[in-house]
Amino acid sequence: MSDYQHILVRRDGDVARVTMNRPERRNALSAELLTELRAAFEEISASDASGVVLAGNGPVFSAGHDFADVVGRDVDGVRELLKLCTDLMHTIQYLPQVVVARVHGLATAAGCQLVASCDLAVAAESAGFALPGGKGGWFCHTPAVPVARAIGRKRLMEMALTGDVVDATTAAEWGLVNHVVADDELDEAVDALLARATRGSRDSKAMGKATLYAQLDRPEKDAYDIAVEVMVATSQTPAAKEGMTAFLEKRPPVWPD
Amino acid sequence: MSDYQHILVRRDGDVARVTMNRPERRNALSAELLTELRAAFEEISASDASGVVLAGNGPVFSAGHDFADVVGRDVDGVRELLKLCTDLMHTIQYLPQVVVARVHGLATAAGCQLVASCDLAVAAESAGFALPGGKGGWFCHTPAVPVARAIGRKRLMEMALTGDVVDATTAAEWGLVNHVVADDELDEAVDALLARATRGSRDSKAMGKATLYAQLDRPEKDAYDIAVEVMVATSQTPAAKEGMTAFLEKRPPVWPD
Amino acid sequence: MSDYQHILVRRDGDVARVTMNRPERRNALSAELLTELRAAFEEISASDASGVVLAGNGPVFSAGHDFADVVGRDVDGVRELLKLCTDLMHTIQYLPQVVVARVHGLATAAGCQLVASCDLAVAAESAGFALPGGKGGWFCHTPAVPVARAIGRKRLMEMALTGDVVDATTAAEWGLVNHVVADDELDEAVDALLARATRGSRDSKAMGKATLYAQLDRPEKDAYDIAVEVMVATSQTPAAKEGMTAFLEKRPPVWPD
Repeated sequence: MSDYQHILVRRDGDVARVTMNRPERRNALSAELLTELRAAFEEISASDASGVVLAGNGPVFSAGHDFADVVGRDVDGVRELLKLCTDLMHTIQYLPQVVVARVHGLATAAGCQLVASCDLAVAAESAGFALPGGKGGWFCHTPAVPVARAIGRKRLMEMALTGDVVDATTAAEWGLVNHVVADDELDEAVDALLARATRGSRDSKAMGKATLYAQLDRPEKDAYDIAVEVMVATSQTPAAKEGMTAFLEKRPPVWPD
Repeated sequence: MSDYQHILVRRDGDVARVTMNRPERRNALSAELLTELRAAFEEISASDASGVVLAGNGPVFSAGHDFADVVGRDVDGVRELLKLCTDLMHTIQYLPQVVVARVHGLATAAGCQLVASCDLAVAAESAGFALPGGKGGWFCHTPAVPVARAIGRKRLMEMALTGDVVDATTAAEWGLVNHVVADDELDEAVDALLARATRGSRDSKAMGKATLYAQLDRPEKDAYDIAVEVMVATSQTPAAKEGMTAFLEKRPPVWPD
Repeated sequence: MSDYQHILVRRDGDVARVTMNRPERRNALSAELLTELRAAFEEISASDASGVVLAGNGPVFSAGHDFADVVGRDVDGVRELLKLCTDLMHTIQYLPQVVVARVHGLATAAGCQLVASCDLAVAAESAGFALPGGKGGWFCHTPAVPVARAIGRKRLMEMALTGDVVDATTAAEWGLVNHVVADDELDEAVDALLARATRGSRDSKAMGKATLYAQLDRPEKDAYDIAVEVMVATSQTPAAKEGMTAFLEKRPPVWPD
C-alpha cells in the first residue's frame, strides 16, 4: 500500500488496516486527512483485500472536523470540505469490501458519522459517541444523516439536541454499533466480526453491499424494484451457480472470484 | 378451503391456518409452493376469516428459495420466480386480515423475508433467523428489503454480510419478531396475539393495515397526506360512527361488518 | 403569555410550560384545544424561551381526539379537524425551541401522536401508550404516522392492530420516549433533559431541529443534499464562528443570539 502522512495503511493477510494517525489532534478530520482516507479506500477498492478495519491511534477514535481547518473558510471552502467528507462516507458504503469501525475513546461529530457510515462497528466498553454541535454554535447537520439512519428518531433527537456523550452499551442497544466488548478484547472482536462478514463470494458480497445502500430509505416497492433486478442479474453469475450447485450436491463451494 | 398439494389450509373458528407442508424440503419456497401460498391468501382475502396464522411443518419454518428450482432458470425465469415471491409478500401485507407468523426452527433467506413481511410474528425461543446469501454466492437482495425495514441498519448489515443465524431473543430485541416464548408455549402465544389483533371492526382494520403499509418509508409529510385523507374518508363509515357513538354512550360497540 | 381557556401557559425562567387543562375530558383534543395549543406554540416561537415542556393536568396526558367533537362532522369538517391536528404536530417539530413531552397516565391516539411529535419525551413509569383505534371502528391512521417513525415496524403493527396499552418501560425500549423514571421523579427528569437539550446557540439549534425533520425519512443522498447546504450556510454565522474560535482558544463560548 502507498505511504500516507496522516494515516497508516497496511495489509494484514486478507484485511486492509486503515488507522487515522493524528493522535495529537485527536484524529481531527482535516481536509488532508479526509483526502488521504479517500485515497486509501480507493486504493483498497482496487485491491484483492476482502475487508477493512478503520481505527484511530491515540486517545480517541476521531474528534470530527478540525475547526482549525474550518474557521478561515468561506462558504465555497466549507462546501468543498463537506463534499469531500460526504464523498468519503459514500466511498466507504460503496466500497466492494466490508468495512468495520474499531471504536475506542470517543467518536464525535464527523467521527461519529464515520462510525455510522461503516458497514459494521465494534466498540470498546469505555468508548463514547456524541454529536456535540447540538450544544455549540455549529449544529452537526451532516453527521446526523447516517446516525439518524442507524438509531431511532427520539434517540437521534437526544444526541443531536443535547450533544452529550452516549456510552458504548447504550450505543449498541440503539443500533449505532453492532457489539460492545471489554476494552482489552476489542481487536479480537473486530477481527472475529470481520472474518464472519467476509466469507463467501467477494463479487457477490460487493454487489450485495451496494444494493443494500441503494434500497434503504426508500418506499418498500421502490426497494423491491431495485433488489429484484439485481437478484435476477446476479443469479446468472458463476458465484451464484456454484453456490447453489454446491449446496444441492452437499459439497463446499469453490468461489470463482 | 381448497385443497393444496404443498400447503395445508384450514379454518379454525375465525382464524385461517396456513401451514407450509414440504418438511422433507425444509419448506423450501418452490414456484409451486409460492403459487399455492398466494392462492390460499387470495382465497382467505375473500373469506370472513378475521386473521391468519402462517406456520411450517417439520424441522424448520422455511429455508427460503428452493435452489433446485432456481439453478436451471435463465434471467427471465428467475425474474418470474422473484416477482411471484415479491407478489406473495405484497399480498400478505395488503390482505384485509391480520397475518401472524408462527416461527420455529429456522427462518432463512426468503423464509426470513416471509417473517418480516407478515404483520406480526411470534418465535419459539429455539428459533433462528438468517440471510445466508451473504456468506454464499447469491446475496439475499430481496429478503433484505423487508428485513431492513424491521430492524436497524447496523443489524441488517450484520445479518446480510455475515449470513449467520440470529437467535430468537436477539430477533425480538431488534424488532424482527414481536415476541419470543418458550417452545411449548408458541401456539398459545400466537393465538393470544392474533386474538388481541383481530378485535374491532374488520373493515376498519383492513383499511388500517393497507394505509400503514402505504405510508411507511415515506417522508413524514407524504405519509400524512395519505393518512389524513384515509382517516377523513373512514370517519363517515358505519363502523367509525358506531365506535365513537358507543364510546360516548358508554356501551359496547356493535360492529356493522 | 396570553390567557387560554383549555390550556395553561406560563414562563418559568427560560422554559415555557404548556399544560393541557381539560382534566374532566382527559385532555381530549377538541378543535378548541388544538387551536389554543397551536396559538400557544406560535406565541412561544416568537419569544425568547429556550425550551418547552408539554404536559397534561388530571389523570392522563391526553386521550386523543374528542369524539364528541367528531361524530357530527362531515368529511369537510373532519378534514378541517385533522388538518388542524397535523398542523399542530408540524408546528411543534419546526418550532425554534426544543419541546419535551412530560407523559403521565395515558397517551392514546392523537395523544400518543403528540408524544411522538415532540422532539423528546420522558415518561413516568406508570404511564401507558396506545393507538386504540385498531380495536375500534376508526383506525388511528394519522397517529400512526409519527409513531411509525419512532419505533420499529413490527412494534408499530402490534400497537396499531391490537390497540392495547404499551407500558412506559417498553415504550422506552422501543424508542417512543427517551427515558422512563419513577413517577415522583418525572418533573425533575423532564427539566434535566430539557436543560441538557437547550445549551448552546439558540439560532444554531433552531436551524438544527428544522434540518433534522427535513432530512429524516429520505434516501440518504437526498438527506445529505439538504444537510450539506445548511451546514455550509450556517458555517458563516456568528454562532458557528464563535463556537469554533472559542474551542480553538480553549475558552467558554459567548453565544451572539
